[in-house]
Amino acid sequence: MNKQIIKDRITSLREVLKAKDITALIIPSADPHLSEYLPEYWQGRLWLSGFTGSVGTLVVTQDFAGVWTDSRYFVHAAAQLEGTGITLQKLQKGSPNHIEWLAENLQAGNSIAVDGNVLSLSEQDRLVDALADNDIRILTSQDVLSDVWQDRPALPTAKLFAHDDAFLSQSAKDKLAAVRAEVAEIGASHHLISSLDDIAWLTNLRGSDVDYNPVFLAHMLISQDKATLFVDNVKVGSDVQQLLDDSGIELAEYDEIKAALSALTPADLLLIDPNKVAVGTLSELADGISMIERIAPSTLLKSVKSDQDIEHVREAMRQDGAALCEFFAEFEQRLNAGERLSELDVDSMLIDVRSKQPHYVSPSFPTIAGYNANGALPHYRATEEQFSYLDGDGLLLIDSGAQYQNGTTDITRVVGIGNVSAEQKRDFTLVLKAHVALAVACFPEGIASPLIDAICRAPLWQAQMDYGHGTGHGVGYFLNVHEGPQVIAYSASNPPERAMKAGMISSNEPGLYREGGWGIRIENLCVNQPVPNPSETEFGSYLYFETVTLCPIDTRLIEPSLLREDEKAWLNSYHEQVFNELKDRVDGDALTWLTERTQAI
Amino acid sequence: MNKQIIKDRITSLREVLKAKDITALIIPSADPHLSEYLPEYWQGRLWLSGFTGSVGTLVVTQDFAGVWTDSRYFVHAAAQLEGTGITLQKLQKGSPNHIEWLAENLQAGNSIAVDGNVLSLSEQDRLVDALADNDIRILTSQDVLSDVWQDRPALPTAKLFAHDDAFLSQSAKDKLAAVRAEVAEIGASHHLISSLDDIAWLTNLRGSDVDYNPVFLAHMLISQDKATLFVDNVKVGSDVQQLLDDSGIELAEYDEIKAALSALTPADLLLIDPNKVAVGTLSELADGISMIERIAPSTLLKSVKSDQDIEHVREAMRQDGAALCEFFAEFEQRLNAGERLSELDVDSMLIDVRSKQPHYVSPSFPTIAGYNANGALPHYRATEEQFSYLDGDGLLLIDSGAQYQNGTTDITRVVGIGNVSAEQKRDFTLVLKAHVALAVACFPEGIASPLIDAICRAPLWQAQMDYGHGTGHGVGYFLNVHEGPQVIAYSASNPPERAMKAGMISSNEPGLYREGGWGIRIENLCVNQPVPNPSETEFGSYLYFETVTLCPIDTRLIEPSLLREDEKAWLNSYHEQVFNELKDRVDGDALTWLTERTQAI
Repeated sequence: MNKQIIKDRITSLREVLKAKDITALIIPSADPHLSEYLPEYWQGRLWLSGFTGSVGTLVVTQDFAGVWTDSRYFVHAAAQLEGTGITLQKLQKGSPNHIEWLAENLQAGNSIAVDGNVLSLSEQDRLVDALADNDIRILTSQDVLSDVWQDRPALPTAKLFAHDDAFLSQSAKDKLAAVRAEVAEIGASHHLISSLDDIAWLTNLRGSDVDYNPVFLAHMLISQDKATLFVDNVKVGSDVQQLLDDSGIELAEYDEIKAALSALTPADLLLIDPNKVAVGTLSELADGISMIERIAPSTLLKSVKSDQDIEHVREAMRQDGAALCEFFAEFEQRLNAGERLSELDVDSMLIDVRSKQPHYVSPSFPTIAGYNANGALPHYRATEEQFSYLDGDGLLLIDSGAQYQNGTTDITRVVGIGNVSAEQKRDFTLVLKAHVALAVACFPEGIASPLIDAICRAPLWQAQMDYGHGTGHGVGYFLNVHEGPQVIAYSASNPPERAMKAGMISSNEPGLYREGGWGIRIENLCVNQPVPNPSETEFGSYLYFETVTLCPIDTRLIEPSLLREDEKAWLNSYHEQVFNELKDRVDGDALTWLTERTQAI
Repeated sequence: MNKQIIKDRITSLREVLKAKDITALIIPSADPHLSEYLPEYWQGRLWLSGFTGSVGTLVVTQDFAGVWTDSRYFVHAAAQLEGTGITLQKLQKGSPNHIEWLAENLQAGNSIAVDGNVLSLSEQDRLVDALADNDIRILTSQDVLSDVWQDRPALPTAKLFAHDDAFLSQSAKDKLAAVRAEVAEIGASHHLISSLDDIAWLTNLRGSDVDYNPVFLAHMLISQDKATLFVDNVKVGSDVQQLLDDSGIELAEYDEIKAALSALTPADLLLIDPNKVAVGTLSELADGISMIERIAPSTLLKSVKSDQDIEHVREAMRQDGAALCEFFAEFEQRLNAGERLSELDVDSMLIDVRSKQPHYVSPSFPTIAGYNANGALPHYRATEEQFSYLDGDGLLLIDSGAQYQNGTTDITRVVGIGNVSAEQKRDFTLVLKAHVALAVACFPEGIASPLIDAICRAPLWQAQMDYGHGTGHGVGYFLNVHEGPQVIAYSASNPPERAMKAGMISSNEPGLYREGGWGIRIENLCVNQPVPNPSETEFGSYLYFETVTLCPIDTRLIEPSLLREDEKAWLNSYHEQVFNELKDRVDGDALTWLTERTQAI
């Protein structure tokens, strides 16, 4: 992007700030639903700064502009911000985050504006905690951005559609009843849901308002006798209207949520998830309305997949695995034939093979195909402007996935190109040991998910290695590829709602990143399953991980002397399963590839 | 104890409560220092209830009396409380603790008395949080117990003594300077320390006021220009007085602490650890004195042992190991000769052999020698009234330790007597696998200690087994055998002060308990050491555990087919080290025993 355009936009913004007597403006990467992927309308931070990363907070004052982002984007952001006058502020130990920076640099009597429509209640609490003592005002009712963003895009208008009945095991009516039971148990009279995946899960509807996550912009307000979906009515066809009627869900316009909340009285008690509800959504709430803040019941219910859901996911994994065999066979063949391929080719080839599979909808996140040094950036994304050709020797990291109506996939594999060094094999094998350690682990049902991360990392720690991201995230069922409440990451907090329950799907994705060298990550999805025929029952109930992702792990990258017999046994057994599940779904070169790559070591 | 005596005491107490219009009295197991071992003067819960367990809270109302204690004492407490009219209240999931019970059973306008001198600030907060809404008064200024406990014992008067200079690596003056630097950094003007091990560490003095912990009753009040030790002056001889003078520490009477605190002004800022300071100690504080509540700097400084300290501890471990060889050789010989031995004999034999070692002071905690079903009670203690003979076949669990001037020891071993079953061997081997998993682990420096517990438990979880206690506690240097801040227990919270640092000493003690059957625990102490010559340096600093306890682990109890090669290698290497370190310190039967028991498997 032209750097001068960014400079001009910041200049215009400063004039508005000056006119409104606002000392600092915060532009978070957020929407009224605290979503991971934002409709263009809410990509104000990108529009103002030119920084395209998925995580970043822009702060602008009269004499400062800075974007805070985390380590995965340091290189990326530095390049994009250079020459714009906006500084890169690194989110890292020992450096102030944007709230700490504001607390240090602003003075009593100053004011900070942040659009309440994109500010969660929790984030507002953090701001207030840090700044309240300093007599700094926090203004959340002004959308300053719209004053300078003249050609701000419209909200998306894609139609809602039903999640195919063939893949549903619970009706929206029954889900609503389950949520109502929890709301009653908690003692609330009303429950506001703003998180889009919760709403999609609860209504059994899907949408196309953003890429990758099959969700639609909406809020829901639920009481014991009424449930209302607030959504742009243009998006609701007669089929969806019928489904909503059948489920006892009324329809209202998207922007009517504030007015609906304003009708609550002090006799009501509103349940909200403070991390998933925006301050602005509640801005017309009358004084004296009490709220209960805690994780939404739907988030917990959604995380536990039914046996039927899991059976569908297993089929989606076979489809995805077959597609990947086709991809890898063709990919290796073209490389061997001397064709020059790029990271972008990997992305398009993957979409090609997956889109031929039944029930395919879309990719589940932007493909990460990172060759050598690019692979060392855990969230690298090749673009038309910047990508690498797969020339010479090295390692290619491919993290990709798809949305199928019968399941959401997410898999990372590493491919060796040309000669692979002994150091690369050692790194790969250590990551594999970490992956296997978690894949075979048992753990007490109900344990807070962050507490089992050490089991995975132990083999890497043994070699004084670690990786900067979590080991595992929850995965939706034809829904967001990242969902809570569980997160297998020792750096995360471990409140009771992070408890591991049977039926949850999580990723198992240890990695290792050599800055400027290469990146390794081995990722499968796995389902929390009760241990069948436990050898003991007096010490409580235990879960194990059923690995459901089906795709060979490249044994040519393994240094066998580093693997124990039990680790080899897991790998051989996994490959035997992969072969058996996929052999009748592929043929020709893909079958040859599958057969070769699943040989025992 | 005569149950009628208990009944009479409760009756007298109820009369006092009635006269004073107090609805409920709480008697915690605590003293003004929140100590683990209490002087008799503060053993009011034992005196009133007859329950001898180390943990228990008594609540008495006009129509209820109950003792809350945890699972390790359920059997014990049930027997001791039977016939007293006092009910056993189990501290377990799903049952109310004493605060919840009070919240449920008391009514608005009622009052609860608890002696503020034995109530920590944190515990008072929990009481207030639970009861404040109910208009229940909490009275902390009355010592109701003294009204009924006519022959209440006096406070101990044992003399203070200096920690032998030969084993000190930092003068009290330097420690005081280090604490003052931290207090200044935190921004406080004054710092009150009530925890006895912190005071003993800081002054380099020791005492004999309670069993097992070489501490003395005292408080310390520290500012940048003054440090005062509040202790019964009768206990201070001229030698100790001289040491205090040299360290710049003034002396005041034990009970003058409240008056000293009353001299603080609103310009002062008092640093206290709310878990380690009693409400009563602060009872004369003027209004408007601000406090900073956080872990005491001395607790963090004390936890990190110097290289010289650790070198002394290694020597203490050799002494302890040699003593244990003598014990085990004689013990097995007497058993083999057909002598009938009891759990109590084990205790006295252990004290005999240890007390012959140089620098020996006392046991570091009550020996746990539990045969078969008794071993399944993790905190079992044989008494003259109730103990078992080591008859027949089974497993004997021995958990014991000593205070030496050059270090504190704590070790658990399991001995097979007669025939050992395949199931017992399997259990033993699985616990050994857990022990080895932690013994060989590396982990990031600074990780919160609870987060590494899963590494230890993974082999047991794999077999759907677990144990109800923590895996590791901090250990003092000729000080308390249980000290913070670290605790290797996944059930614990993981605040930043639980960070693992080089120089900390912790236990590694996984176990397995078959109720009514047998108990297994394998415990060594280990020192957090930086990984020497790390294979990688770009992923941060790593620690490993140097196992310092030296005593064979009984290989006759192992089912070898359950051990991996690397686990066998650890055991053989450990036994080689044990043999080499101890062989010149034992002779005769003890050397023969050591030689046999350290053979490689």
